[in-house]
Amino acid sequence: MSVIQSVTASESGKDLLSRFQATRAQSEQLCKPLSPEDMTVQTMPDVSPSKWHLAHTSWFFERFLLQELAPDYRVFHPRFDYLFNSYYFTLGQMFQRPRRGLLSRPGVSEILDYRAHVDAAMATLIRERGDEPAVARLVILGINHEQQHQELILTDIKHVLGSNPLWPAYHDKAPSTASPPEALQFHAGVDGIHSIGYQGDDFHFDNEGPGHQVLIRPHTLAHRLITNGEYRDFIRDGGYQDPALWLSDGWSTVQNEGWNRPLYWGEDLETLFTLAGPQPLDPHAPVCHVSFYEAEAFARWAGYRLATEAEWELAARQQSPQGNFQDDGLFQPRGLEKDRGKLGQLYGDVWEWTASPYAPYPGYEPPKGPVGEYNGKFMCNQMVLRGGSCATPQDHIRASYRNFFYPHSRWQFSGIRLAKDLPG
Amino acid sequence: MSVIQSVTASESGKDLLSRFQATRAQSEQLCKPLSPEDMTVQTMPDVSPSKWHLAHTSWFFERFLLQELAPDYRVFHPRFDYLFNSYYFTLGQMFQRPRRGLLSRPGVSEILDYRAHVDAAMATLIRERGDEPAVARLVILGINHEQQHQELILTDIKHVLGSNPLWPAYHDKAPSTASPPEALQFHAGVDGIHSIGYQGDDFHFDNEGPGHQVLIRPHTLAHRLITNGEYRDFIRDGGYQDPALWLSDGWSTVQNEGWNRPLYWGEDLETLFTLAGPQPLDPHAPVCHVSFYEAEAFARWAGYRLATEAEWELAARQQSPQGNFQDDGLFQPRGLEKDRGKLGQLYGDVWEWTASPYAPYPGYEPPKGPVGEYNGKFMCNQMVLRGGSCATPQDHIRASYRNFFYPHSRWQFSGIRLAKDLPG
Amino acid sequence: MSVIQSVTASESGKDLLSRFQATRAQSEQLCKPLSPEDMTVQTMPDVSPSKWHLAHTSWFFERFLLQELAPDYRVFHPRFDYLFNSYYFTLGQMFQRPRRGLLSRPGVSEILDYRAHVDAAMATLIRERGDEPAVARLVILGINHEQQHQELILTDIKHVLGSNPLWPAYHDKAPSTASPPEALQFHAGVDGIHSIGYQGDDFHFDNEGPGHQVLIRPHTLAHRLITNGEYRDFIRDGGYQDPALWLSDGWSTVQNEGWNRPLYWGEDLETLFTLAGPQPLDPHAPVCHVSFYEAEAFARWAGYRLATEAEWELAARQQSPQGNFQDDGLFQPRGLEKDRGKLGQLYGDVWEWTASPYAPYPGYEPPKGPVGEYNGKFMCNQMVLRGGSCATPQDHIRASYRNFFYPHSRWQFSGIRLAKDLPG
Amino acid sequence: MSVIQSVTASESGKDLLSRFQATRAQSEQLCKPLSPEDMTVQTMPDVSPSKWHLAHTSWFFERFLLQELAPDYRVFHPRFDYLFNSYYFTLGQMFQRPRRGLLSRPGVSEILDYRAHVDAAMATLIRERGDEPAVARLVILGINHEQQHQELILTDIKHVLGSNPLWPAYHDKAPSTASPPEALQFHAGVDGIHSIGYQGDDFHFDNEGPGHQVLIRPHTLAHRLITNGEYRDFIRDGGYQDPALWLSDGWSTVQNEGWNRPLYWGEDLETLFTLAGPQPLDPHAPVCHVSFYEAEAFARWAGYRLATEAEWELAARQQSPQGNFQDDGLFQPRGLEKDRGKLGQLYGDVWEWTASPYAPYPGYEPPKGPVGEYNGKFMCNQMVLRGGSCATPQDHIRASYRNFFYPHSRWQFSGIRLAKDLPG
Repeated sequence: MSVIQSVTASESGKDLLSRFQATRAQSEQLCKPLSPEDMTVQTMPDVSPSKWHLAHTSWFFERFLLQELAPDYRVFHPRFDYLFNSYYFTLGQMFQRPRRGLLSRPGVSEILDYRAHVDAAMATLIRERGDEPAVARLVILGINHEQQHQELILTDIKHVLGSNPLWPAYHDKAPSTASPPEALQFHAGVDGIHSIGYQGDDFHFDNEGPGHQVLIRPHTLAHRLITNGEYRDFIRDGGYQDPALWLSDGWSTVQNEGWNRPLYWGEDLETLFTLAGPQPLDPHAPVCHVSFYEAEAFARWAGYRLATEAEWELAARQQSPQGNFQDDGLFQPRGLEKDRGKLGQLYGDVWEWTASPYAPYPGYEPPKGPVGEYNGKFMCNQMVLRGGSCATPQDHIRASYRNFFYPHSRWQFSGIRLAKDLPG
Repeated sequence: MSVIQSVTASESGKDLLSRFQATRAQSEQLCKPLSPEDMTVQTMPDVSPSKWHLAHTSWFFERFLLQELAPDYRVFHPRFDYLFNSYYFTLGQMFQRPRRGLLSRPGVSEILDYRAHVDAAMATLIRERGDEPAVARLVILGINHEQQHQELILTDIKHVLGSNPLWPAYHDKAPSTASPPEALQFHAGVDGIHSIGYQGDDFHFDNEGPGHQVLIRPHTLAHRLITNGEYRDFIRDGGYQDPALWLSDGWSTVQNEGWNRPLYWGEDLETLFTLAGPQPLDPHAPVCHVSFYEAEAFARWAGYRLATEAEWELAARQQSPQGNFQDDGLFQPRGLEKDRGKLGQLYGDVWEWTASPYAPYPGYEPPKGPVGEYNGKFMCNQMVLRGGSCATPQDHIRASYRNFFYPHSRWQFSGIRLAKDLPG
Repeated sequence: MSVIQSVTASESGKDLLSRFQATRAQSEQLCKPLSPEDMTVQTMPDVSPSKWHLAHTSWFFERFLLQELAPDYRVFHPRFDYLFNSYYFTLGQMFQRPRRGLLSRPGVSEILDYRAHVDAAMATLIRERGDEPAVARLVILGINHEQQHQELILTDIKHVLGSNPLWPAYHDKAPSTASPPEALQFHAGVDGIHSIGYQGDDFHFDNEGPGHQVLIRPHTLAHRLITNGEYRDFIRDGGYQDPALWLSDGWSTVQNEGWNRPLYWGEDLETLFTLAGPQPLDPHAPVCHVSFYEAEAFARWAGYRLATEAEWELAARQQSPQGNFQDDGLFQPRGLEKDRGKLGQLYGDVWEWTASPYAPYPGYEPPKGPVGEYNGKFMCNQMVLRGGSCATPQDHIRASYRNFFYPHSRWQFSGIRLAKDLPG
Repeated sequence: MSVIQSVTASESGKDLLSRFQATRAQSEQLCKPLSPEDMTVQTMPDVSPSKWHLAHTSWFFERFLLQELAPDYRVFHPRFDYLFNSYYFTLGQMFQRPRRGLLSRPGVSEILDYRAHVDAAMATLIRERGDEPAVARLVILGINHEQQHQELILTDIKHVLGSNPLWPAYHDKAPSTASPPEALQFHAGVDGIHSIGYQGDDFHFDNEGPGHQVLIRPHTLAHRLITNGEYRDFIRDGGYQDPALWLSDGWSTVQNEGWNRPLYWGEDLETLFTLAGPQPLDPHAPVCHVSFYEAEAFARWAGYRLATEAEWELAARQQSPQGNFQDDGLFQPRGLEKDRGKLGQLYGDVWEWTASPYAPYPGYEPPKGPVGEYNGKFMCNQMVLRGGSCATPQDHIRASYRNFFYPHSRWQFSGIRLAKDLPG
């Protein structure tokens, strides 16, 4: 079993090279508005400097492909294996994650040279051997890996800029004000025995399989995401002061961290830090940057629950992934324009916290080799999120895609969709 | 919905009182070998002093029953609500858990007076109103609550004595050496659609329900627990040095805590601290005091996995709860005497870590009121354990009983049973 | 050079034995009001359990005298060298100080047996060899060492009981209310070149010597200690809110610890925890349990400074040590009865913070051997206090006696005397 | 009394402006080899980013001079008072010191604009009012303040680069290998009553006064600094393993930090990180980057002690400040070329730890106003260092100059000179 279950014929050869090059270019494009200083800072252990992301994604290609498959390849720098390995212990020791922001060297310019060096060798490798399924699989894995780091580049730089008392802007694309959304409507989901997990021949991550049957009980799902205004009602109703609404670990976190609002909200509950700098809080836009604890407490307060990942996947499978993605260049969730007679905002805008702990699917085994550390070893203590966000590339997401974060994490673009049991 | 779903007729009246009194007496009996100094110490935040357990269980009856149902009841001390509330925020603020060991007063003697005061008032209440189902339900909840703390009294004092360089003994009942166990045999479990969760009319905790259907895939379960000798093979094979065997959070814990063997093992891997003091490590007795991380890594190393809680429950339902329990007075797991043609050691000896995150069953809602904080708010970040241990009262356990601890916890009597998928 | 510079003839023989026995008995007498639980608890790393003090002082005699000088002596327990060594690294490793409160065993009863065992062997040793100066010196050192721990027994149990929300009393000897003190008067001290440090033939600690000349500039000293009422004026004038009054490290401590009043003051500034339990704060009694930072900030606020240790010693040398000591059995500072035409309260009541960092006197060298770790290695980062307190035995103190604590420490009986420069 | 005791006539007018401009230019010159990334990183709370130093020194002129004395001055940015105030609480709240490295904005370029803006306004102010003594005093204070930060720019960037596994070089000026030094010779110092402290009419810091008499006992001082080779002998003799050599707090630091060699030494004791990158350790060059604890332990091991600050000052007063300073551009201590018949290396090379706690001189009072926070509030818990280093501007140092750091600090260019008592 491998991280990439298979690769379609169409991905090989020239198409693969251009997709590789487009992805690599996009990562650098996302860093264009940033200064070398911006790209160096790490504001908390979860955050990595932008230049680290640019280097690490290159290291991934260098280490998993070039060092293995290109006999003449000359490593760019003998210490980069140590500096830019993220968490692959089977490949050796690595620089400590919480100290990434202490490294001024290599600088942005040297890292761009590193990228060019890797890109040139990769272009040769893809041209020469891109038709081989084993090679193509790894290239596509590297592309998908880099797309994940594109999202992290945006997520992390938002934390860097948002931790600065000056609240500087990344760009000037402020979203337009959303129209008032319709009242929440609840659509019945499918129930009974169904299969979930990836089923098909294209790329997907190992954690999306094996496909397997699940038993779904009768339930409904909200037709849209929860808005800032709705979440502000929860705050004003004393949500952050009432322990009865919270999981025990959530309540501890609220107390220890002094949380009383989502990340990036101003104290006045009227202002929001965005990648376009401070903006008036739009009550009709989806609430974002809440933790699982907050999403779960909100749902309890509202008299609902979060969806399970299976419920979400079965609903999402009925749509193709369309929505507000990284491709739109806004990097901020948008209000739902209008009810289209189906579930809205399933894809894009914000990752939706589910009620499902991140656990292996029945029969799951991690791939052999270092790539086995990619997903499987994180299947404990985290919760599944679904659907992608405004920072996710559109062609990166699928109905079966499983993202995962610790329940206290909220620097991601993460939000809330409600669900409810139906009488069985 | 309530924590106690129902109570059988037989529990009312005189039977209830004698069961109440027997439980209360047993808690004090467990503390008989302990000095006031022993009963005062807290060696880590998870551990509570024995005298705190004696007081808190009394407070539970005082606060949930006497203050609510006995109009003439006079509270023993006005500050005990503050000192001995564990985690019921809906009842007010409480003394910080990690500081329980800083309280020399009230002393053991005053706490025994507190117990007598509560017991007298409870006896009156049970005599007068024990036939009322609502009252009986709360009494039975209090009894079960106290049984849980009996296990904690033993578990916690083991940590207190085991943290002392003198390794003092609690009693002198060392287990006899176990016979070499038979090689592991794997018995096929039931598969297909089955119901799990409590179904019946007797007491059970809210987290055991609602009963619901689950889909079980073909699998086998080991006929016995993993032994010290088998676990020592894992250690000697470098198990604690190989990151590929561990979940990411498990590996961090191993590194940060410097783990290289189970809790209470001597560095020589030949000695064990037990409640009977230091003893030669018996290779044929079940391994105990391992965390979920260690159980999971051992299973991976051995080429198996842990059972899910549903698989475990369906197997356990075929037996009545018999085994090595608190009632035996040994407080140490024992080797499996002989293969009885069925799964052995399901009940008693050690709590068995399962592969299942502790999550609400479909349709679960916590009970209304303070008692709603009993179980539901912990349904995040923890793993389910099943079957009870040598420190559990035999009449406390059931096939549907769900215990839960954080995956790094190992001061409990917790061990390992392996499982494996069968081709579907 | 030795910790004890010399010993007078009068101390030898029978007198020495009775003094030894009286000191040993007094330590146990001080623990009489305490339960085994009280004697077990450690509320912060600086505090040691009472039973640890009882054991450690016995260990001192066992290790420095009996193991060295009594060939037939049988150690009471082979692990007590490890458990009850405080900080003598040259004697081997020791149990970690912050974990002393985690040891329930040995219990109080066993430690009293330990004391009796040591006392019997010491009585024999003193009878047989107490006339030898080298032996007598060590006995007297051990007696003085035990007197220091008597003060710590009181100081530490005050912290244990004062950290308990119940504020339980150690005894019932509340001080009577003090009369309003006279306004502060300032008496000129001696100036010019003078000798300080111990000069004589009796016991003294190594850190009191060598005697040496110092240059004193013209100054005055306040005729009494600062009172609670005067300190409360500082608080009400915003003393804890004004960074301009504080040393930088002091201000950090105030912020980090949330200090806004002395230790053991109630939030209302009207109540005080004492060893007699909560009492109305007496505005005329000396302020106590302030850190050096607070003493220094108070002095700056009042327009004065603290005395240097040389100024203090030269003034104190003109009086014999009389005042409110442990011998009075009150364990609480008292107001100054009346002006006696000289500096009052120099001895007893509270240790007086001086402006002098604890540094070696010119020419100081620590004694050879383990006893060299007694004082010298602490000559950094601490401040000198002078005069003894209400918890100090009267025959333990001298004008040349140097106590020392970190500037943030305030669980000691420590207070404030003001001084001021005179035009030179 | 003021930080600047007086200012000579010669400093006024045009000279002052050119000195101001030269100092400002030198700070920027020191940053020339650095990338924006280098100038952003903070590797520990003691270290500040280079760009912070460039901004803070400008803020000092803006806040203490321009905002007070230049009515038409327009502040460059309204939030810079918050961002670039270091520790002047009397001027308002400030950004937390340990988080300075989290600020990517303002970037280097904007900070250089800030400097130009301040410089232009300062030039006008100096031209117009530089003859006024009160203005000149503050300008000279600001110049001296900036010189202190020049040293910190070098010291801090050494830590930034030295914390990077790549050990990148700041420049390529490696020192030449030193000749073997002569054996240590000890020269008798002056003894008796002497005055120390600044006496004169030129600029000096408030902590250098008042001049006052001190009593000095007979002693000798080593004619040169301790070398790397001599310090390596201490290491090889087990210096870091023997608690008897260390102050108690020093030994704790050694244990907690795992120290076994000076900062920037390679594990092999043969390599040294310098601002010229890794270099072979020169056994004849002065040892550098040791803490007070290490200096004091070395002295004890060698059978000597450190000098007091008075002993040092009286010796240094006999020489003018010449040596290896920032002006040499080497930024690394050099071996003593040859014995010149007097004490060598008193100035420059490394700051010399003294045995003197940093305390106020008799009669010292901090200046009124915010500038009073400059020095006085740090007079606790720190030790005095003397003589300047290879990172100090030559015209910044004097015999009376008092530097101070915590005894555990060792990222400064700090080293060791031995002293010894003579029979009195």
